[in-house]
This record gives sequence, structure tokens and C-alpha cells, in this order.
Amino acid sequence: MSKKVAVILSGCGVYDGAEIHESVLTLLRLDQRGAQVKCFAPDIAQHHVINHLTGEEMPETRNVLVESARIARGAIEDIREADITEFDALIIPGGFGAVKNLSDFAAQGAGCKVQAQVLAMAEAFAEAGKPVGLICVSPALAAKIYGPGVTCTIGNDADTAAAITQMGGAHQECDVSDIVEDKDRKLVSTPAYMVAKSIGEAASGINKLVDRVLELVQENEEQVTA
Amino acid sequence: MSKKVAVILSGCGVYDGAEIHESVLTLLRLDQRGAQVKCFAPDIAQHHVINHLTGEEMPETRNVLVESARIARGAIEDIREADITEFDALIIPGGFGAVKNLSDFAAQGAGCKVQAQVLAMAEAFAEAGKPVGLICVSPALAAKIYGPGVTCTIGNDADTAAAITQMGGAHQECDVSDIVEDKDRKLVSTPAYMVAKSIGEAASGINKLVDRVLELVQENEEQVTA
Repeated sequence: MSKKVAVILSGCGVYDGAEIHESVLTLLRLDQRGAQVKCFAPDIAQHHVINHLTGEEMPETRNVLVESARIARGAIEDIREADITEFDALIIPGGFGAVKNLSDFAAQGAGCKVQAQVLAMAEAFAEAGKPVGLICVSPALAAKIYGPGVTCTIGNDADTAAAITQMGGAHQECDVSDIVEDKDRKLVSTPAYMVAKSIGEAASGINKLVDRVLELVQENEEQVTA
Repeated sequence: MSKKVAVILSGCGVYDGAEIHESVLTLLRLDQRGAQVKCFAPDIAQHHVINHLTGEEMPETRNVLVESARIARGAIEDIREADITEFDALIIPGGFGAVKNLSDFAAQGAGCKVQAQVLAMAEAFAEAGKPVGLICVSPALAAKIYGPGVTCTIGNDADTAAAITQMGGAHQECDVSDIVEDKDRKLVSTPAYMVAKSIGEAASGINKLVDRVLELVQENEEQVTA
């Protein structure tokens, strides 16, 4: 039976939403591996809107779910509709949306809060022992989801790593083409564009993350049937 | 020497801009094949803005260059800045942006006009004998760029194919995993999401298109040195 994976998007664009390349690379690898995917996003206003040409803030508002629907080609649901019993695993791509919309880590650092519906959904996967993949800067949410002691990577950015440590997480440096796995918690992370200098580099780590998340689903299934 | 490829984006989102998956898949394959890529878009207002969750028009305006910058992670230039002597080939991904922003084909059909800067750039590649790749619905522009007799595909959509024929083009049906090549004009096209039912299917044809465009660049280089 094909594995079912939920993906949480956080908008559409690296500076104020989900990193587009990371999101598409995740969807591509999941499809190539035969997984069934459903995308979700919170139905909330974006923290702000950034002009991706100039880097400046734009005087308008956009909705995280509506903008995420661009990446999902309309095939996306409000995260409130998510029934986690339908899914075997969860993956959250990066982009500033993860730390501006799914949480306020970008502004609050170690004192951040994760958006309530996102936190509830991620915690439900964690508590059910279902594998989770966090890409790029989204591992900044790991300690809030799993509590102290969780191991993850955001690559080698000292400030972000220090904030993760301050929240009780254990940060491990990682190359762009590699993953870090917290075996007890079935959490896999990869730095992607925290480190990547090209889309091909980002793909190398994301492919490994997706493959490992699906292997962990397989291991879960084998435990059930054993 | 690495091959230099220009990519024209038409916004960010299938219903009012560049199809995001097709754009990212194009950038991925080009990078994996060692090509250097520069993205361009016209600095014009989008035809309209579509809510990708509901399919309804939104009462706001967005700029094609600014929204395309989301896909390009900011690494994009106004198409007016493009110096085609710097590039070996051109690729235009699909999405409704190709027929709403880069042209008015969606509204005007065979009576359409291609946006002036886009037309000038594409014609310059055509006249220089440099290969061009058109993805998804963008081959609807082929007869306007190359004139009557040009062969291309948009898959198997009867209405779009009829409009291409009416403009003087020769439409050829094509599977999602395949390409159609006009050998005289060095034009390669693939249906992608005109036909694709999944991102993996779209990737299969796009990968073939990118590979063939780069082979044609190679053939051009060998002719120069021969």
C-alpha cells in the first residue's frame, strides 16, 4: 500500500512563506517514490509580504493557506481539516514562512511559539511515533514539538543553532547533501537552503530526507505486522 | 564551458502566472546538467490575480517580475535587461501566465499578441539559431515567434491545438513523457501539466526537453568549432 504523507506549507516564497524549491523538490521525490501526498496550511494572515525582487516589505496582506495553494496547484486543505490518523508521516519544508507564519521564531528566537494548529498537528505525529521530516530552518520548531533533548540540524548557522540549544534541542552540524536523524523520535532534518548554493544541492539532502522518512514509515509498518 | 540558459517566468502560480512545478523542475534539471541559468520576466502588471484555493479572481494587482522573483529566490532580471548574446538557449515554462501575461492567448486565441519584450527576446533566439524550449501551454506562442510552419506540441488539447493550427503552426500530439522537436528551428516542446497527472509525470517530459535543448546547444558549439 502506498504511504501517505502530509506536507505543511507556510506560504509561497522564501522570504515570507514556504521556500518554493524545497517544497517542490519534496513533492517531486514523494511522488517519484510512490507516496500519496496531501498539502496543508494554516488559514491565517502571513506575518508580512516581502517583495522578492527588492527584499522590501510590501503594504499588503496575504493569507498563508491561499498563497500555499499556488505551490499545491489548488490541492491543499486548511490544517484544521487534517486527520492525522490518515497519514503515515509529516514533512515541513523551509523558507522564512516556517519561522514567520508557522511560528514566530524569526522575531522571538528561543522564546518563540509555534502556531497552535501547526503545533497540535506536529505533536500528534510525534506522539503517534510517526516519522517527521523538517527541512531548512523548520527544525527550529523541533524542541517545541518534541521537548528537550531532540536532535536536529539547520546546517551550520551559529545563531540558529544556539537558539535551538537554548530551547533544549541538541544541534548537530550537517552537510547540505546529508541528513540528521533522531532515532528515538523518528525525526529527520536536512539543511537545504540554510546551506545550499544551488537547487541541485538542496535536492541532494531533501531526496535523502524523503527517502529516510519513507523508510521509517516502512519500519513502522513492519513492526505492526510483526 | 558551461552552457548558459535564459528562462522567462510569467508570475508565480499556475492559474495567473508561471506553473511553479514546471519552473522549478526546469531549474533543477538545468542545474543538475551543469548549465548556468538566469531568470527573466517582464516588468508588467499581471492580467489578474487568482485565488489558487478557490479559483476566483482577487481584487488586487500583482507585478509579473516581482511575483516571478519568488520562484527565482530574487535572482531575476527585468527582461529589458536581457542580452541574448550572453545565452546559448531559452526555455519558457508553462502556466496560465504564458497565455495571460506573456501573451493574451487565453483571451484572444489565434488572434493573440505576444508581449513585445517577450516576443523580441524569443525572436532573437530563433533568428540566431539558438535552441528554445517551450513547456506546457507556452507552445501556443510558437507560431507568433517562428511564423507559419513551426511544429510544436501542447499535448492533446483539441481547442489549443486548433488555435495553433489556425496561427499557421503544425501541432503534433505528444505523450507527457515525450518531446516534439522542430529540427529546422531548434524548437523543443513538451506538454507537462497540459497532460500530466502528477509532478513526476511533468518531470519526465521536462527533463527530456532540458536535456535535448542542451544537446542542441552542444551541436551549435560543435558547428562553430568544426
